[in-house]
Amino acid sequence: MTRVEIVEVSPRDGLQNERTTLSTADKLELVDRARRTGARRIEVTSFVRPDRVPQLADAAEVATALPANGTDGIGYSALVLNVRGYERAVATGIREVTTVVLASDTFSERNQGMSTLDALDVVREIRGRGRVDGVKVAVTIGASFGCPFEGEVPEDRFTSVAAAVADLGADEVCLADTIGVAVPSDVETRFGILRELSPDVPMRIHLHDTRNTGVANAVAAVRSGVRALDASLGGIGGCPFAPGASGNVATEDLVYTLHRMGYDTGLDLGEAIAHAEWVTGKLGVPVSGRLAKVGGFPR
Amino acid sequence: MTRVEIVEVSPRDGLQNERTTLSTADKLELVDRARRTGARRIEVTSFVRPDRVPQLADAAEVATALPANGTDGIGYSALVLNVRGYERAVATGIREVTTVVLASDTFSERNQGMSTLDALDVVREIRGRGRVDGVKVAVTIGASFGCPFEGEVPEDRFTSVAAAVADLGADEVCLADTIGVAVPSDVETRFGILRELSPDVPMRIHLHDTRNTGVANAVAAVRSGVRALDASLGGIGGCPFAPGASGNVATEDLVYTLHRMGYDTGLDLGEAIAHAEWVTGKLGVPVSGRLAKVGGFPR
Repeated sequence: MTRVEIVEVSPRDGLQNERTTLSTADKLELVDRARRTGARRIEVTSFVRPDRVPQLADAAEVATALPANGTDGIGYSALVLNVRGYERAVATGIREVTTVVLASDTFSERNQGMSTLDALDVVREIRGRGRVDGVKVAVTIGASFGCPFEGEVPEDRFTSVAAAVADLGADEVCLADTIGVAVPSDVETRFGILRELSPDVPMRIHLHDTRNTGVANAVAAVRSGVRALDASLGGIGGCPFAPGASGNVATEDLVYTLHRMGYDTGLDLGEAIAHAEWVTGKLGVPVSGRLAKVGGFPR
Repeated sequence: MTRVEIVEVSPRDGLQNERTTLSTADKLELVDRARRTGARRIEVTSFVRPDRVPQLADAAEVATALPANGTDGIGYSALVLNVRGYERAVATGIREVTTVVLASDTFSERNQGMSTLDALDVVREIRGRGRVDGVKVAVTIGASFGCPFEGEVPEDRFTSVAAAVADLGADEVCLADTIGVAVPSDVETRFGILRELSPDVPMRIHLHDTRNTGVANAVAAVRSGVRALDASLGGIGGCPFAPGASGNVATEDLVYTLHRMGYDTGLDLGEAIAHAEWVTGKLGVPVSGRLAKVGGFPR
């Protein structure tokens, strides 16, 4: 059986886009529930400006409270957008960060206050710091499949950003469908480009189920050689550019499909459903994934 | 561009599983809205026992009110489960029926009061009548991917049912994921078997999005040579074996994915969304598809 890793991002991307802010204790319980589901990689928080993302203002408390990376077999990672965030993360004991470059300039300017090219410089600096500190640095290319401001991200634009990311030697490259517009053929094409540019880099995908393509894209990704998929218990998180939309593809939905297709994720579907119900209950939102409503098959 | 036909089944499978019964006039409006969306094949009703499916008790009135098949370029079809239903359908001018055999005996006994083998005899008789009357007969193999009572439908069981259906020379064979459990690898395997048994028969798929696999399965089907897909505006219909579940895969969700992958359905996404909103409003249920919440891309 091929092993496919689910990276549980509900504590970061999930909580970041919900109206209700969980207490630090509840966040730690969510991380623990992700661990009990079987996740071996968990994105626990984001070291960004608390005035921009107040839901994650307690990033340092959350990260500090976790077992030191490696001691319990779990890779706890954090999102960082600049060197300051990287330093704050590493100070808490985090040994794995994901940083982001957005594929379109307009989105990059709006989100990070700089062009894609300047953001690549920041990523390169973080990459260098990670080498020195022994911190794993994953790079996400945000809006790899479409931009909320510019619309289509042309293939040559994507290719040049991916080439720059390949050049800086990330430990992992993640293509993010930030606004949930990709279809399977897009996933195949763009991971094919990435694979060609960077034949050995581990590939990851970050999906939103905004247009009901999340599971289809996950299948396309896994069949294109991607071995790590971001997902969120209950599909929490919404989409900041589509009010009322569902969030990340639901962990439990991916587990159902991947297991039934013969992939091994190490996660337990029943646990995933239970914790999806817990976190959506805490947030006061409906479960966006579908498995929690009906259960697996066969029973 | 490869043409892929969407068979709009909301007037039949959609309405059949909803609590609210639409008036005959509203049903005819739904058919008309499907036509305005661009559908060229519409399953308009089901000639079954009104005590079993009261929502479609006015099957004859609906079918009689439609233009004679062919005169407006639309293929209006109806579901029939026995010769009596076939006769009632044909008497209204219907020139295309879908009949059903269930892949498992328990399901067949519960739903049709006879074994799969006996149901195959019924289908064979309808097939014969269709030849004489010049009525197109499609055969759906229900529960092709899993049974609500028996669980897994083993591959050899499926193969023997598919072989019997291939032998009787249906005009089209549809594999139905009646309870929404299939994953893409199942779709590929079972359509591969069907194609081998019946190299020339047009293949169709009937999907429920119960476990969020509808779009992924549609993509797998189209890539396996399937050229007709049942779908329902708004994803109405639910699943009789999973209370609270979503229904058929939503027409508008399929249109988004298929168009963005370069297939031509002839449908208009904006129209589909508008009519999905109309029919769910009439039924007083939420839209189950996702496109209606966020719209297409790029705008």
